[in-house]
Amino acid sequence: MFAPEELTQDRFLDGRLLVAQPRKGYRAAMDPVLLAAACPARPGQAVLELGCGAGVASLCLGWRVPNLRLAGLELQPAYAALARANAEANGIALEVIEGDLAAMPSSLRARSFDHVIANPPYFAPKGGTAAADPGREMAQREATPLAEWVVSGYRRLVPGGWLTVIQNADRLPELLTAMAGQGGSIRVLPIAARSGRAAGRVIVQARKGGRGPFALLAPLVLHAAPVHAGDAEDLTKIAQDVLRCGEVLRLQS
Amino acid sequence: MFAPEELTQDRFLDGRLLVAQPRKGYRAAMDPVLLAAACPARPGQAVLELGCGAGVASLCLGWRVPNLRLAGLELQPAYAALARANAEANGIALEVIEGDLAAMPSSLRARSFDHVIANPPYFAPKGGTAAADPGREMAQREATPLAEWVVSGYRRLVPGGWLTVIQNADRLPELLTAMAGQGGSIRVLPIAARSGRAAGRVIVQARKGGRGPFALLAPLVLHAAPVHAGDAEDLTKIAQDVLRCGEVLRLQS
Repeated sequence: MFAPEELTQDRFLDGRLLVAQPRKGYRAAMDPVLLAAACPARPGQAVLELGCGAGVASLCLGWRVPNLRLAGLELQPAYAALARANAEANGIALEVIEGDLAAMPSSLRARSFDHVIANPPYFAPKGGTAAADPGREMAQREATPLAEWVVSGYRRLVPGGWLTVIQNADRLPELLTAMAGQGGSIRVLPIAARSGRAAGRVIVQARKGGRGPFALLAPLVLHAAPVHAGDAEDLTKIAQDVLRCGEVLRLQS
Repeated sequence: MFAPEELTQDRFLDGRLLVAQPRKGYRAAMDPVLLAAACPARPGQAVLELGCGAGVASLCLGWRVPNLRLAGLELQPAYAALARANAEANGIALEVIEGDLAAMPSSLRARSFDHVIANPPYFAPKGGTAAADPGREMAQREATPLAEWVVSGYRRLVPGGWLTVIQNADRLPELLTAMAGQGGSIRVLPIAARSGRAAGRVIVQARKGGRGPFALLAPLVLHAAPVHAGDAEDLTKIAQDVLRCGEVLRLQS
């Protein structure tokens, strides 16, 4: 468990959510907010987040869509406890299950969901520099292969359910290969810091058993200025709508 | 062979190339021009085009880069003859080999190239409406699986050589899966008709044995107007540079 002095209170959706995060651990920024915005959940549906961390994505989704049945699976006990506390503090019902997606807890194996969302670790098992904080390292460094996140996600979906994943853009080939295995109607939303730049992240969405065509969508561009312009705020209109107002990002037409 | 009255003389690169194409058969438009623009060939290098048709891509590349050793493999004898005639008429050296990439002619099996380019058929073996013209149907309908185009291409490359393919955007997952097999440093250039639209085509480039990261580039947008504005010309500056002036499209940084 984190001690209170190890935590910061961070504003998401322009302060609509206040989420405690470890000062030195894994700290969510834009990515879980974008993930939540891309999940096409409708009121009353069941949603599972694989690797929910402190709960930011699930809480953003719960803020936008009423009456969801939200569940989050989290490997690290301290983060699972934090997600529970954050859900309670924000008045959003989120059931947090402690466990490993590579050894799915039996309580989840018996259930299925309309949507699965995930923000898996971005860094491959080797290479790069390890994070100094062990919790952060675990959240960022892949232990379970990316393909297993996808397969576990599909397993928990009802037929026709949607799997939505945000990932570093350089992992797109392996993510697509995995997602094409049991799904179709795949959409890729590239996310670029600025117009004309390569994608930094991708959101990939697939329908379990879907047969619709693949589509590569126009990028979501986050910043309006052509280069970094100091600390001045320059989010594009669509980035403001999503990141501040919690609006939906429609990937399916 | 096509009779003269079956042919039209078509202008490419703003009339810098004049290419005979069958009136009713497979007729190249922008795609082979974009493919040629994306091939990073340097003077003196050897380039193989798989399925060269009437030769538009190879001729555009030969127009841009001096002293290339250009070879084209073409399955349909009438198109192979047309490519030879088009090369001669435009004063560009292009060796055209008649044959099937799925049963690579021995003359090509003994050779390797610095670059392989291809514009494989866009339509999967089943589904859709067959083209009335048999030559067009053969050029557009996949007989040899897309993955085999990729594997055949890699086989003909020197280590470190580049494979560049243009394809319908809806085939990106299978194209990436195939290209990741023996290559790396993969770049995807989405090509969109207009800003904000999903990609219609993708150019995918990989280096044989490459180990560089994958990148999803910013889209190339062809038309400047937000909607189709009749017959008025509205190509973007970059589309004009590539399609009219034969300039290079740089995918690798």
